[in-house]
Amino acid sequence: MPRIALGIEYDGACFRGWQSQPGGATVQDVLEAAISSVASETVRTICAGRTDAGVHAAGQVVHFDTAARRPLQAWVRGVNAHLGAHVAVTGAQEVPDTFNARYSATGRRYRYLLLNRPQRPGLLAGRAGWHFRPLDVPAMVEATAHLIGRHDFSAFRAAECQAKSPVRDLRALSISRSADMVIFDLAADGFLHHMVRNIVGSLVYVGDGRRPPDWLADVLTRRERRLAAPTFDAAGLYLVGVDYDPSWNLKVSLGGTASLFPHP
Amino acid sequence: MPRIALGIEYDGACFRGWQSQPGGATVQDVLEAAISSVASETVRTICAGRTDAGVHAAGQVVHFDTAARRPLQAWVRGVNAHLGAHVAVTGAQEVPDTFNARYSATGRRYRYLLLNRPQRPGLLAGRAGWHFRPLDVPAMVEATAHLIGRHDFSAFRAAECQAKSPVRDLRALSISRSADMVIFDLAADGFLHHMVRNIVGSLVYVGDGRRPPDWLADVLTRRERRLAAPTFDAAGLYLVGVDYDPSWNLKVSLGGTASLFPHP
Repeated sequence: MPRIALGIEYDGACFRGWQSQPGGATVQDVLEAAISSVASETVRTICAGRTDAGVHAAGQVVHFDTAARRPLQAWVRGVNAHLGAHVAVTGAQEVPDTFNARYSATGRRYRYLLLNRPQRPGLLAGRAGWHFRPLDVPAMVEATAHLIGRHDFSAFRAAECQAKSPVRDLRALSISRSADMVIFDLAADGFLHHMVRNIVGSLVYVGDGRRPPDWLADVLTRRERRLAAPTFDAAGLYLVGVDYDPSWNLKVSLGGTASLFPHP
Repeated sequence: MPRIALGIEYDGACFRGWQSQPGGATVQDVLEAAISSVASETVRTICAGRTDAGVHAAGQVVHFDTAARRPLQAWVRGVNAHLGAHVAVTGAQEVPDTFNARYSATGRRYRYLLLNRPQRPGLLAGRAGWHFRPLDVPAMVEATAHLIGRHDFSAFRAAECQAKSPVRDLRALSISRSADMVIFDLAADGFLHHMVRNIVGSLVYVGDGRRPPDWLADVLTRRERRLAAPTFDAAGLYLVGVDYDPSWNLKVSLGGTASLFPHP
């Protein structure tokens, strides 16, 4: 039975998150319905990063098994014809049945866009977080030094997080400013539930002067969620890409429109 | 009676264009209702660029007269509190009653975002145009040389255009690529109705090889709309900013989130 991997992108403002729910309106619900139509059988998908309601994806990866034999273009154009405007398949390829979009992933990359100006977003409503006090980016960058590396991230983990271990390897956390947009780029082997939004929230506490950069070392060490800042808005969060061992030759994971957002 | 100028941004996908219509749902309708609430009187606005349905603005400028005396922050935060999420006032300042958002403007700047890949947009649905055939950007750049300057742009003018003269000074037209996004930046004293979208459509004809770069010289000279390409999708078009003589000291025209999109 062929196993197919897809690259997916979506506007998270239009969905109740990735994961299937009674009542539908999730990315998984509409995607599985579209794939099932093309396959003429019920298809279930596994994704690399289960994004929350409001979170966007430029480079989500999923896989599914199907008895249907279709040309690869059917899994792109055919599925897209069954999807609404705000989600699209960007690529398809056949993969060995030992490949798993979730468990084979060795890394995930997220970007957070934070509009930093006195006025709330209008053009980018639902597309960016917002903080109205001026942010000191160098102070925030200084604080990131305490977080980068392999740590127990319990302080930045949602109560409902289902991960077995709170230890993650945060490989990169860069912050840059482009006019009134502050851009956070994070890479890790994986992220705990709400981890990016909790880290962004805590870095904002440093950026607007409510806490010194060293505060983050203390929060991390004490591993208590209540010590860190509140979870930041989902609207600014983008799953930019997923990493796999090069031996899989997974081309669909490159992320189609990540290039839209300014790189540092 | 004070005259107030405002900087405005909006997501054009959520409105039936700028100009007030029976049935409402235009930017002008919701903005005038919000300003009127703050002013406690009926207020009418004049804008610099009357964008069509689906066209976005990062740097729209409007002015209005009101007998109401309010602190400037009321025209920003107060009006924003009366507006929906997808439109925002980014700044306010008092201007002399000789200033006119439309007639004092000496230039307008537009950006067009064109996703150039085989798959339709998902994340950027309603936010970018789309062309699936590969585009030859150097050929398109070559073609722009025929358009830049002061010309009769009748070939790129919508039939319903109400401008008295078809002559415009196209001061800049640059094209660049950032991965799968092709970015057009145009500046002129003013634009005829559909002029940007018609120019983009014709440049796409050059970019995918249907016409040679010199074809645009011929189209321009013959001044017949039917010779140019069809009008391109409104979704990719952004009013980025409006220019005024520096003597007005118009700070609200700077455009808040133009920085989001990658600069060439």
